[in-house]
Amino acid sequence: MSRSPGKLATSGRVVALCGGVGGAKLALGLQHVLGERLSVVVNMADDFNHLGLYISPDLDTVLYTLGGLSDEARGWGRAGETWNFMEALKQVGGETWFQLGDRDLALHVERTRRRSLGETPTAIARDIAWRFGLRAAILPATDDDLRTMVVTPEGELEFQHYFVARRCEPTVQRIRFDGCESAKATDNVRRALEADDLELIVICPSNPYLSIDPILAVQDIAERLRAARVPVVAVSPIIGGQAIKGPTRKIMDELGLVPTNAEIAAHYRGLIDGLMIDQADAADAAALGIATHIAPTLMTDLPSKIRLAEQVLAFGERLQGAPSLKTAASGDMP
Amino acid sequence: MSRSPGKLATSGRVVALCGGVGGAKLALGLQHVLGERLSVVVNMADDFNHLGLYISPDLDTVLYTLGGLSDEARGWGRAGETWNFMEALKQVGGETWFQLGDRDLALHVERTRRRSLGETPTAIARDIAWRFGLRAAILPATDDDLRTMVVTPEGELEFQHYFVARRCEPTVQRIRFDGCESAKATDNVRRALEADDLELIVICPSNPYLSIDPILAVQDIAERLRAARVPVVAVSPIIGGQAIKGPTRKIMDELGLVPTNAEIAAHYRGLIDGLMIDQADAADAAALGIATHIAPTLMTDLPSKIRLAEQVLAFGERLQGAPSLKTAASGDMP
Repeated sequence: MSRSPGKLATSGRVVALCGGVGGAKLALGLQHVLGERLSVVVNMADDFNHLGLYISPDLDTVLYTLGGLSDEARGWGRAGETWNFMEALKQVGGETWFQLGDRDLALHVERTRRRSLGETPTAIARDIAWRFGLRAAILPATDDDLRTMVVTPEGELEFQHYFVARRCEPTVQRIRFDGCESAKATDNVRRALEADDLELIVICPSNPYLSIDPILAVQDIAERLRAARVPVVAVSPIIGGQAIKGPTRKIMDELGLVPTNAEIAAHYRGLIDGLMIDQADAADAAALGIATHIAPTLMTDLPSKIRLAEQVLAFGERLQGAPSLKTAASGDMP
Repeated sequence: MSRSPGKLATSGRVVALCGGVGGAKLALGLQHVLGERLSVVVNMADDFNHLGLYISPDLDTVLYTLGGLSDEARGWGRAGETWNFMEALKQVGGETWFQLGDRDLALHVERTRRRSLGETPTAIARDIAWRFGLRAAILPATDDDLRTMVVTPEGELEFQHYFVARRCEPTVQRIRFDGCESAKATDNVRRALEADDLELIVICPSNPYLSIDPILAVQDIAERLRAARVPVVAVSPIIGGQAIKGPTRKIMDELGLVPTNAEIAAHYRGLIDGLMIDQADAADAAALGIATHIAPTLMTDLPSKIRLAEQVLAFGERLQGAPSLKTAASGDMP
């Protein structure tokens, strides 16, 4: 079912907005097709300080995934990982609620050292990406402090404390992005979104509320998406009518959010020109009020990631030159 | 050749001054005999900040050794250690000249976290010693900043930078202990050295110039040794006329120090009441101008460490009640 590469696959630049594991899979496929013509703008609002270390979970997932270093079977962290640090940390009475592998730890220690010397997250990510042999540019959405805070009856919790340490037990009343009033897109992100040869902006199938919203909470990123002269397409995280599962589903329920393609389309309205949905949800297309592209979106292996990337690029090509429907409320593309 | 326990082995308290690997072996033997009646005062002047972490090489060697966690075969670090952090650190461009094992790292990270919260090295060491199941009290010589600095033609180097990173290549012109004018013994060290039931002070067979001198550079520790009403005995690091080997020998040569039993006795004159020397060096005894005790001092396994500890305690007993010879220049004890 592989298609021959179109224009986007051979010349234009693409920016992808991405959270952690799910989004990184598509980013890996896009890197495979686009190489250095891909820039990945990554959520930084899950970052937290733990054991005195700066930890950037989504950024590191993207770095490991696109560097071919991630553990595919476990679904997070590095391949060939060992856990002797954690075992010894428990022995000396340290906090062990956040799993840090022995190899993974090196990135946190080195990042923390460089940040203490005044290096920006962007500069550090660029260097690490180069060392890991990545071809895509990995761009933190912002170098400013921006934190996903979960408002619960017990008070406000940092996202990782809520999500990992508290295992999502407290009821979520609200999610807010601390620092979003002042957080600015980095120069690199602005340049990527304004490049003359930019041809497509992709929102990866990361959780819209927890992974993409904190990127869009950076005002000058959201503004550039709204004003973009190139197509902006999102890949829906819904597959086969299945909403996001597990603890994230609990959060959505508590916030009164029903993750369906209709909800995703409504959520991104005004920002995107098209929504890519899974073939199993083809019946949703007509009612979404936005251009759609139907394809298999489940990514199980590298070929399926590359195929989805090609489909995304094909969708972008199809939308190029078409009148933007961001402010309209029309149906599928003709 | 084991002797039946004397008074010191059954009632009195003992303070041992100790550097890293060599001294820790005797401290382990002493802990075996004395249990919680032993306090070990540890050199802190080799400490350094590396990768943003507070690292206390001698203190950790003592903690691991007395906790039964050290790697006997390698001679340093923890048993069952792995090195995946170092491998990954190299991959991300970090500084890899100082080997940090995955398990060892936990102690540095946890210590750094606690110190950043204002906990003292003494409080942290007490807690870790408890967690490792140590019976002896492990007392950092000082909680103040005190750093062994190596003066070379290339300028001043911190000890670990000189010793490990530069592999002792620069010529040593002088060693000084930065901060020694203001560094104070901790309350715990002072209490240990002034305890009513204190019966013996032992200087372990650590390097006198690099490991013990920085403890004695803390003025109120040196003063308490000079004024002690209990015997102070040193165990000579010389065995079979063999001076200290390897890079340490190079340092000694460059400083014009000839590590012989005569030099050790002269170095500690005014501080010690007796010097324990190896049986292979029995002929040295007559000319040392100090009380001596001759015994096998090579510690290869736990029984040999315990036997040496028993010999040290026997020497202390022999010196108890005898007039102090610290200020005299006499020969062996009658």
